[in-house]
Formats: sequence, structure tokens, C-alpha cells
Amino acid sequence: MSRIDGRTPDQLRPITIERGWSKHAEGSVLVSFGDTKVLCTASLTEGVPRWRKGTGEGWVTAEYAMLPRSTNTRGDRESVKGKIGGRTHEISRLIGRSLRAVVDYKALGENTIVLDCDVLQADGGTRTAAITGAYVALADAVAFAQRKKLVKAGRQPLTGTVSAVSVGIVGGVPLLDLCYEEDVRAETDMNVVCTGDGRFVEVQGTAEATPFDREELNALLDLAAAGCGRLTAIQRAALEATE
Amino acid sequence: MSRIDGRTPDQLRPITIERGWSKHAEGSVLVSFGDTKVLCTASLTEGVPRWRKGTGEGWVTAEYAMLPRSTNTRGDRESVKGKIGGRTHEISRLIGRSLRAVVDYKALGENTIVLDCDVLQADGGTRTAAITGAYVALADAVAFAQRKKLVKAGRQPLTGTVSAVSVGIVGGVPLLDLCYEEDVRAETDMNVVCTGDGRFVEVQGTAEATPFDREELNALLDLAAAGCGRLTAIQRAALEATE
Amino acid sequence: MSRIDGRTPDQLRPITIERGWSKHAEGSVLVSFGDTKVLCTASLTEGVPRWRKGTGEGWVTAEYAMLPRSTNTRGDRESVKGKIGGRTHEISRLIGRSLRAVVDYKALGENTIVLDCDVLQADGGTRTAAITGAYVALADAVAFAQRKKLVKAGRQPLTGTVSAVSVGIVGGVPLLDLCYEEDVRAETDMNVVCTGDGRFVEVQGTAEATPFDREELNALLDLAAAGCGRLTAIQRAALEATE
Amino acid sequence: MSRIDGRTPDQLRPITIERGWSKHAEGSVLVSFGDTKVLCTASLTEGVPRWRKGTGEGWVTAEYAMLPRSTNTRGDRESVKGKIGGRTHEISRLIGRSLRAVVDYKALGENTIVLDCDVLQADGGTRTAAITGAYVALADAVAFAQRKKLVKAGRQPLTGTVSAVSVGIVGGVPLLDLCYEEDVRAETDMNVVCTGDGRFVEVQGTAEATPFDREELNALLDLAAAGCGRLTAIQRAALEATE
Amino acid sequence: MSRIDGRTPDQLRPITIERGWSKHAEGSVLVSFGDTKVLCTASLTEGVPRWRKGTGEGWVTAEYAMLPRSTNTRGDRESVKGKIGGRTHEISRLIGRSLRAVVDYKALGENTIVLDCDVLQADGGTRTAAITGAYVALADAVAFAQRKKLVKAGRQPLTGTVSAVSVGIVGGVPLLDLCYEEDVRAETDMNVVCTGDGRFVEVQGTAEATPFDREELNALLDLAAAGCGRLTAIQRAALEATE
Amino acid sequence: MSRIDGRTPDQLRPITIERGWSKHAEGSVLVSFGDTKVLCTASLTEGVPRWRKGTGEGWVTAEYAMLPRSTNTRGDRESVKGKIGGRTHEISRLIGRSLRAVVDYKALGENTIVLDCDVLQADGGTRTAAITGAYVALADAVAFAQRKKLVKAGRQPLTGTVSAVSVGIVGGVPLLDLCYEEDVRAETDMNVVCTGDGRFVEVQGTAEATPFDREELNALLDLAAAGCGRLTAIQRAALEATE
Repeated sequence: MSRIDGRTPDQLRPITIERGWSKHAEGSVLVSFGDTKVLCTASLTEGVPRWRKGTGEGWVTAEYAMLPRSTNTRGDRESVKGKIGGRTHEISRLIGRSLRAVVDYKALGENTIVLDCDVLQADGGTRTAAITGAYVALADAVAFAQRKKLVKAGRQPLTGTVSAVSVGIVGGVPLLDLCYEEDVRAETDMNVVCTGDGRFVEVQGTAEATPFDREELNALLDLAAAGCGRLTAIQRAALEATE
Repeated sequence: MSRIDGRTPDQLRPITIERGWSKHAEGSVLVSFGDTKVLCTASLTEGVPRWRKGTGEGWVTAEYAMLPRSTNTRGDRESVKGKIGGRTHEISRLIGRSLRAVVDYKALGENTIVLDCDVLQADGGTRTAAITGAYVALADAVAFAQRKKLVKAGRQPLTGTVSAVSVGIVGGVPLLDLCYEEDVRAETDMNVVCTGDGRFVEVQGTAEATPFDREELNALLDLAAAGCGRLTAIQRAALEATE
Repeated sequence: MSRIDGRTPDQLRPITIERGWSKHAEGSVLVSFGDTKVLCTASLTEGVPRWRKGTGEGWVTAEYAMLPRSTNTRGDRESVKGKIGGRTHEISRLIGRSLRAVVDYKALGENTIVLDCDVLQADGGTRTAAITGAYVALADAVAFAQRKKLVKAGRQPLTGTVSAVSVGIVGGVPLLDLCYEEDVRAETDMNVVCTGDGRFVEVQGTAEATPFDREELNALLDLAAAGCGRLTAIQRAALEATE
Repeated sequence: MSRIDGRTPDQLRPITIERGWSKHAEGSVLVSFGDTKVLCTASLTEGVPRWRKGTGEGWVTAEYAMLPRSTNTRGDRESVKGKIGGRTHEISRLIGRSLRAVVDYKALGENTIVLDCDVLQADGGTRTAAITGAYVALADAVAFAQRKKLVKAGRQPLTGTVSAVSVGIVGGVPLLDLCYEEDVRAETDMNVVCTGDGRFVEVQGTAEATPFDREELNALLDLAAAGCGRLTAIQRAALEATE
Repeated sequence: MSRIDGRTPDQLRPITIERGWSKHAEGSVLVSFGDTKVLCTASLTEGVPRWRKGTGEGWVTAEYAMLPRSTNTRGDRESVKGKIGGRTHEISRLIGRSLRAVVDYKALGENTIVLDCDVLQADGGTRTAAITGAYVALADAVAFAQRKKLVKAGRQPLTGTVSAVSVGIVGGVPLLDLCYEEDVRAETDMNVVCTGDGRFVEVQGTAEATPFDREELNALLDLAAAGCGRLTAIQRAALEATE
Repeated sequence: MSRIDGRTPDQLRPITIERGWSKHAEGSVLVSFGDTKVLCTASLTEGVPRWRKGTGEGWVTAEYAMLPRSTNTRGDRESVKGKIGGRTHEISRLIGRSLRAVVDYKALGENTIVLDCDVLQADGGTRTAAITGAYVALADAVAFAQRKKLVKAGRQPLTGTVSAVSVGIVGGVPLLDLCYEEDVRAETDMNVVCTGDGRFVEVQGTAEATPFDREELNALLDLAAAGCGRLTAIQRAALEATE
């Protein structure tokens, strides 16, 4: 049985990570998971929010948004509606938490990095693509801070790497990295964020149609862990390339 | 090694479910998980939101909120701030999804049930207490709909039961049903929503300080599944009692 | 002629004042006027709003809100609507003014007390129950401040006591402490706030259907003054009891 | 003892009512109570809000606002702040209730009249000036509706007239129609709305500094009733003049 | 061919500028361009917004708004809608820019002047009337600052004068100072802001129905320059009169 | 004297128009004016806004926004601030008006096209790039509507083409198509929108520092008209290429 786009159940979509996309940002990445394209920019500023001043520690946060016509049907702009929807809030918080899991605030010093993840085109898995791309933009912004001596010599603000992938059960079969059509039909949907050394940062599984049992959960976790392993390698390759 | 409040690692706090708390609502429950107290009311109205009209199917949704001084330090009211925070949105969505997992919309017919979960006092685990209590309020509202013939004779809008509990790793030890002090110190924090027959509806695990490995994840899932089993029994006993 | 619930025209509903309802707040009271139940919490913080800094004077303010299903029909949450309605604003302001009438800001020193009055169940007279209960919560918070030496020794921030009651003309008869059904049918409706020594802090009378003459106004004021006298005694008894 | 501006305690400020101020509105009045100037326009539209459709009854409502520099110090625009303050809400509601007290909805038929009361210059008593002027604008809009046959022949949508005045105790002396400087120094402040036949529509008394006793309350009510009597005569004269 | 109101194509409507309209503001002008009436107040405060502190330079800004019934059909209040519309923003920005073109910030020193332009009655050309009137209010506020020594002796914060007028092509004919009926029917509509010495500050031309060619553009610019010349003379006369 | 980037005064930056950028939108263009990059998508839906229903006419509108880090310094998201700024409103309105100048609503029929112009990278001239690119996206969406028979056979909803360019006076020299650094230093700044046949749709000139005279205005208009002519040719070439 093959998938909509011909992949095997444990196969990722074509993944690309294009660094240095924007001339202004300290780190900027256009990441693609198949037709899902997310522009991730990392903005570094000296100083921290007021509640953190004087602690000697930095701060990392994220904002996620979709362009109105990134999806099949145009959505209303949240700026026009005057408020941010629940889904947007939830994903922004998830991206921020995921990246902070690999940040050493002391080593970062009193600097703030904001990751903006703007979905230019959506085809499922936008939040996992955003995390995977944002990590690379974050790494570039950290390197920038080191070159500019904003971080003390010899300190490494990143304690590891982080990537994310979606998994789900579609027609009874556990699949890796769902595209939109698979996502819509999934009985269970799970987003998993892992560190480069294979541990979990976030596990968010939701029964969309039918509750799932322990065995199914285990199968999904196996798939996700393997997928994140491959994403980690792709991130490393992108960062090793000359920008 | 005993816990802050003397419990064993796999012990729930004292749980109470008080039905019929409000004279107005079709279902109303004051649920306590130790010092966490949540008032859950179920409001039934005939008809459904516009986007669902004419489908013959019902709708169930939830809203979560905290009273300003339910916590140790007073928080600003979201109505005064003029917008709902990300955490509130996220929990409201979680409660709604969890309850919808056991609802048969066709059997419910074109009726809407809104679950309001207002935290009167918070001491950790407010979202899991809310889900556990809201299910009982939902069951009462459904029974009300059946008595009033708003649901067709012989139809059962509930396909099962649902409850939720938090688990976490504190000082390296997996613990069930964290109170606030434990929650603050947890290295990993997980909320698990189960059906009465032991399957999973939601699994949301977050590494607060250190990423967790597969073995730790398994230990947490074991604890949570057992805890939900006990909560299911408490829900059943509450519903069997004369209101 | 007896009333809907069998009371005489000058009879209060059963009044209960339950102190120490919340474990977090410096003062907390669950007050009932019949089926109307309001949770009043007093939150004390050191310091005052910016515009009052350096004056040596304290500040007391109040916020009123209703849970969505405290009423017979569920109302939309103001946090979801993104703005506070006129009625909510008006009642919050009334409660704040009423309490400030018995506060000596100099004696309070640069401390702020916020009274949150959340209506858990509504059956008429929510604002007068809120004022009556909030005074007791305020007294407990002040006592807390004295025990913690946040108030200078020998200073008494409260210059008196305050309570409130509604009166109205229903079917031509002046009645004390209207329940919801009476309130709806009232030709004239008046809320009166009195100090413990029998003077007036607020008098707010509104002709709902027919304008009222001076004689009717006098009859209502007589009823209200007597009712507040009884509420003052109930407040005193509550505060004299061991919490 | 004479007042700041030389008036006796029971004397109104110079009152002017200028009809037909705007070329667009169905009724428009520039009312002055001394230096307080309020532009009151009545906008008539056929039809009623959705919740009132098909009842055969009309609707009357009001909105109050102050120009930013109507006061001594410029205030922020509520449109710029993005929300309406509590005071604005409260006064808008008061004006609407006061006017509705003399409206026969059945006779008005399914027409809506909105009274906009915009304070061009403020010197105390803006809400009472607004009510007094808005009544005249309302009467003009009703006459317009009658001329245009929007109201059934022989029906009179106005059941009486309404006017309002402030009173207060300043330095122990009850005074009529406070200007801003008196208002700031008042121990007690009361706004009274009366019908043309001398009955009360609203009585709103507030102790600003010291609670007031029954005798003081009576003195204020006497002053206010007499003041409204004189305002009624001024309104009548204005309406009898050729526009 | 004569215009709706009998004017020749290059004729302004009757223009009046009434200074000292408000007793509170440092400068206040009621300006009329025919039936268009705008109240312009200039509020002077010592100090500047935070981003400008310590520069030794002042700031001038403007806010434009329309009363709800200034137009033929009542519009919703922007304060009630909770947000300012695009047109309001755009005109506020235009007025501010136009006035700043003749302000020497250094000479003004760290003072702020806010121009509020509130349209009391609209009949076309509200933005050009607002600019023309606001300049006079600004000049009065500057003179006030000089008398109060808020501006250093010998410094002149105004480098010139500014006025504005609309022009348009209606039925193929270029017309000066359009009234509402002409504005609605215009094929091309242009607002022009000039300094007193005949140079341009703003030129905003819009093809409403048909694009315009270079020759038409030239004709409109000729008309507008001449109109602004006459407005400049009227402003000068108003400022030379004893207030 | 050469420009910052070596161009002659009347030279455009390198212009690229990349069609078919998005797989979802009916028309989508990534337009570059040098380092300014704007993603323009055209979303076609059957039906029109309520106020236009039943007229047989279509509607075209536009929304403009900037990604937070499209600029040198990160800006706050308007969705997070909860309101749209004046500049955003103004540019959205300009783009919409410019495109509507070449639309025949009757021929379009009751269809709506929304143009979203999202600035991915900003280096001056974002609004003129947006108009130029949006026209091409609009043309593609119209062609789509024709292929899908949403537009009646033989009807052409576009009456012409439209493009836009900025011009300005920098150091006394009139320049075409300003980049950000030139824009900041410009004494006068003008945006001009032209049809393909060389007529004007919008002329918006602003004196940033010094008012400009008629001669300077003429020089700017000459430059802009020539620039738009070249942009028209580039648009035509892009549309003639196979997508």
C-alpha cells in the first residue's frame, strides 16, 4: 500500500533548508517539508524583557503565523480580526518551548532572540517544519552573536539541537510526516519534538476520530524518533554548508 | 521517600465530585482534586452554530477560565485586558476536544452543549480536574436532554466516558496527579486524557527542564493510565448516586 | 399579601457569610442572599498604582463579574467578547466607591487591596450582596495587613462598616431585597448602600416602568435603611466568629 | 455666602437650548448649562434592532462622549484607546434610560431613535445637560416622524417630558447645578432626573467624601425637584419657539 | 455653466474662521467651508513623547474624527466599534504631516502640541477645512507658549503658514473646493496642501472613475494653488483680528 | 553624480516578476524591485460582500502587510498588537483603489478578488512594488475565472493595466524608484500610479523636509511616467511568458 504521494509509511517528504534567505535578519531560513514552506527569521536584540532584567540571563521566544492565502481557502488576517486565534497562540507557544529546551540562558547572556515563523504555503506539518527550520535560524543568530562578541567568549548558548515531525494513523496504518490530505483523514495525529540525541522535548498526541491504544502509541513514537533522527542530520548538513 | 503532602508516587489527591451545584445549569459539578476546585457547568441549548445547521448533528464546546484570585498571586482579568491569553485558549481547546471524543453528534441531534470550567481555586492540575468534572456535567446535561425528549428516544449521545490526570517527573521520580508545588519543580510534565475503557484521547508531554527518554515516558504513561482508571470509577459512583 | 417566596415585604432573604473560603486570598467570603451567591476575594499587595506613588496613601478598588452560567440563560464571556459591558463597568465602579467610603487611605499606607466579586449564581441583588460580602473580605485583608505589620501599629484603615440592599416597588408595594422574579416585575428599583451608623453612601433609584413620587421614595428609603441595619449586624457576627 | 460664580444656592446657571443646530439630523440641539456645552443630535431610522423586530415597538437609545479637549486637560480618545471607559458607558446608559421613561414604544412603532450627546465643552453637569438637551432633540425627531407619517396618525410617542439637574453639598451647604469647581469640592453629589409633572425617573446620590444623612438627602431632593421644574419650563419655551 | 450652489468653477465656498471657541484649549478654532464645520483645538503640554526626550526638539501631531451624525446618515462611533477606520487614520496622518511642514522643532523646544479636528457637520472637504483651521489653532497655541515663556525668547517655532483645499473634475470641468454632492460625482478628486508662499506640502490626486491625463492634472494644480492663496489671506486676517 | 547603488537618476532597480509562486492561489506573484520582495496572491471567490449582492457587479479589494522581520529592525506584529496601524490601512486602501481603476465590475460579475500583498523583504518602494505585482496576480486570477466560466464568455473584466513607482528629490536631484536609504534622505517623496496608456490613477506627493515648487513637481511627474511605462512593458512580458 503506498501513500497519496507515493511515499512509504516511514518516509519523510523532500526536506530543504535554505539559509540566509533575508538580508536583514540575524538568522533566516526558508524550510520546506514537501509543499509546506515556512520562512523562519531569528531577530537578535541586546537586552531582555523587563521581568528578566538584571538576571544575567537571556530570552528566546517565537511567533507563528500563516499568510492569508497560504492555505487552499483564504483565511481572514488575524491583524484585521483584531485578535489571535487559539491555534496560533498554541503553536507559537509550542515553538518557543521547543527551542528553549536547548538554550542555556546564562551562556546567552542578556540578549533576546525572537523567532518568527511565517507560513508561506501550507500542506500539513507547518508547526513541525517551523520548529525544524527555526532551530537552524536560531543557530545562525547565536553564531552572529558570538562573532559580534555579544556572547562571552567560550560560552555556548545552545546545549543541543532540536527538530520535530508529525506522525499519525491513517486507515489503520502509522505514517510519518503527514501531508494535508493525510492529516485530514488521520484517526490519530501526533507531533513529536526531539533533541539531536534522541530524547523527547514534546509529545502531543490527539485522537481525532478514535481513541488510540498503547500499542499504536508505541508505533507512532518509533516512527517519530526515527524521523527526527533524519531531520537532525539534514539540519547539521545545512549548518555545515557555507551559507 | 514521601511527597510534599504525604502521598505515595502513584496516589491521587482526595477527589470529590459534587453534582447539582447550580440551580440554573442543565448539568453542574464542583470537582476537587485536593485544593484545586473547578466549577463545571453544562449549558444545553436547542440548535447549533450556523456552520452546522441542517446537518442533523449537534455540537459540544468548552471554555476554561480562572478567577483572578484562584491563584497565589492575583492575575489580571482577561475581560479587562480585552484578550484571552494563549494558555486559556489552549486549555479550552483541550477540554473541548477531550469531551467530543466520546460524543456521537448524530445521536445528540441539533443541540449544543457548552461546558464552562471556571477555576475557583488552583493548586495544580486544573485542566485535568476540569475535564474529569466536565464529563460528569456533560452526562447530566445529556440526561436532561433525554428527559426533555430533545434527543430521540433510544439514542445515546455519549459513546463512553472520559477523565484526565497529570503526571510528571520530580526529582527523578515519576509521580501521579501533581499539586502546584510539585508541578513547579517537575522536570517533565504530562497531561493524559483517557476513555473509560483505557484508551488514550490526548497525551501531552513537555520537558520543562530536561528532555525525557523513552523509558521515562513509559513510566509516566503507566501511572496516568492507572490514575484515569480510578477517576473513571469515581465518576461512575458520582453519576450513580441520587443527585 | 405574601411574596413569591413567602417573605413579608420588609424581610431579607436568608443571608449567609462564609469567611476563609479560599486558601490563597488575604480575605475571602462566599456571601449568599437567598440563591444569589457571590465569591468575594480581597487581594492585598504592597505598593500602589503609579499615579499614587509617594503620597503615603493606599488604594482600594473592585472588579465585578458573572460566571457565564450564573444566570438562567448562559451569557457570553466578556473575555471572549474582548470587552467589558456597560453594566459590569458600572457595578465594579459602584462596589469600589462604596468600600472606599469607609477607608482611611493614610492609615492604610501605600498598600493596594483589590476586591474581586464573582457571581457564582444569580437570583437578583448581586451588586448589593457583593458589597455586603466584599466589606467582610476587606476587613479580613486589613486584619491580615495589621498582623503582617504592613499597616503602622495603632492605625485603623477602616473608618466604619458598609452594607447594601435592594428595594423596589412591585405591584404598588415597596419590598426589601428583591429576588430575580420580583426585580423583573418591579416598577421602581433602588440600590442603597449604608454605613453601619445608618448614613447613606449611595442611593441609586431607577423608574423601570413608572416614575415614582416623593412618598414612594421615602417608603423605599425607610425599608432600605432598616435592611442595611440588619445586614450590619450579620456582618459583625460573621467577623466576630472564629474564622 | 455666595457661590464661586455669584449664584445663590438654589440658582441654575444660564441655560440655553438652541434647536436645529445641524442640517443633517432629524433633531439637533446645542444645550448650554453655563460653560458646559453639549451637542445633542437625534437620528431617526425606520426599523428596529434585530431582537425587537416584529413586535410593533420602537427603540430609543443614547451615546455620550466627550471631545478630547472639552476638559481642562486633554483626555485620550476612546476610539484610539480601543475601548470605552466605565464612566462613558454609565452615562450613556443613564441618558438612554431617562429618555425611555417618557417613550411609548407602541406609539413610536418600529422606528429607532439614537441620541448622540457629544460634550463640546465641559464645566460640570455634562450628563444632566445632555439629558435636558436630548429630550428636546428627541421631541424634534418625533415631530419629524409624525410629519413624515412614520408614526401612525393620532399616536403620541412621548408620554411626558424629562429633564435633569445635579445637586450637591459643598462646604455643608446644599447647592443646585454644580459647576466643575463646586463638583470637585462636593462632599455629596447627586444627579436627579424628573418628569415634567414632578416625579422621579432617576435619583443617583453618591457620598464623595462623607456619608450623608436623611435630612441632607431631603434637602438635596427639594433643590433638585425645583430645579427640574424650571428646566421643564425652559424646554417648553424652546419647543414652542419657531425653530 | 454654474455649480450646484451657484458658484463659479474657481470660487471657494464662504469661509469663516472663529478663534477662541473653547475656554480650555490653548488654541481653538471653529472653521467653516460652507456647511462643513470643524472644531480644531490645539492642546499644548510641556514635554515630549518618550522616544523624543532629551533631543531638545518638540512634537506636533493631529487626530481627526467625525461626530456620528455629522453626516447625512449616522455612522457608528469608532470608540464603540473598538477600532479606528482606515480613512480616519489616513486623514489624521495627513493633517499631522501638513502642520509639521511649517514647524521648527528646535525652536519649539520640548513641548508637544496635539491638534484635535472634530467634524461637527460634514459637507465635503472636511480634511482640507481641518488643515486650514488647525493651522490657526496651532498659531494660537504657539503664541500662548511664547507668552508663557515655554518657548525661548526670540525663537519662532512656525516657519510659515499652511492651508489646504480640494479640487476635482466634475462633468469634465475642473472645480475648486468641492461640496459633498460634487465630491460624490467627481471623476477625479485631489487634495492639495500649500504653504503661504505657494509651494506644495502634499498633493493627493485620485482617479475615482476615469484616469486623468497630464493636462487635467495641471489644470487642477492651478486651481488649487490659487485657492490656497486666498485661504492664506483669510487665515492671516483671522490671526490679525483681536481674538 | 551616481546613486548609492550606482544607478542613474532615471533608472529602475532590477525588476523581477515571478508568476505561479503559490500552489493554492488563483493568481500569485513574487515581485522584486531590487531587494524589496513582495508576495502578491489573488484569491477569487464566487459571490460578493453583502452590500453588493444582487447588483450583478463584482468586487476587488487588497490587504497589505509586512512580515515582522522584513525590515532592518523587527516590528511588532499587528495581530499581536490587536490593531492595524495607520500606515498599513493607508497602503491597503491605495492598492485596492489602484487596481479597481482598471476593473469593469459588470464584466467581472458577482465574483470577489482579494489581493494579499505581504512584504517578505523591504528596501523602499514596497507599496509601488505591491501594486505592480498585484496587477499581474489579478490578471492571472481573472484568466482563471474566464477558464472556469465564472465570467461570462466574451467579457473582459480588465479595462487596462496598472503599475506604480516612487520618485523623490534627494540632495536636490529628482530620482526614480528610491531604495530605502534614498527614501530616508528624500526631501520630497512621491508615489505615482499609472495606467498602461500613460494616464494617472494616483499621485501622492509629500514634502518630507522642504515644500516643493511646481517645477520640481513637474520633473518628478516626468520621471514617474517614464518609469511606469517601463514597468508596463515588464508586466506584459511576464504575462506573455508561459507560467
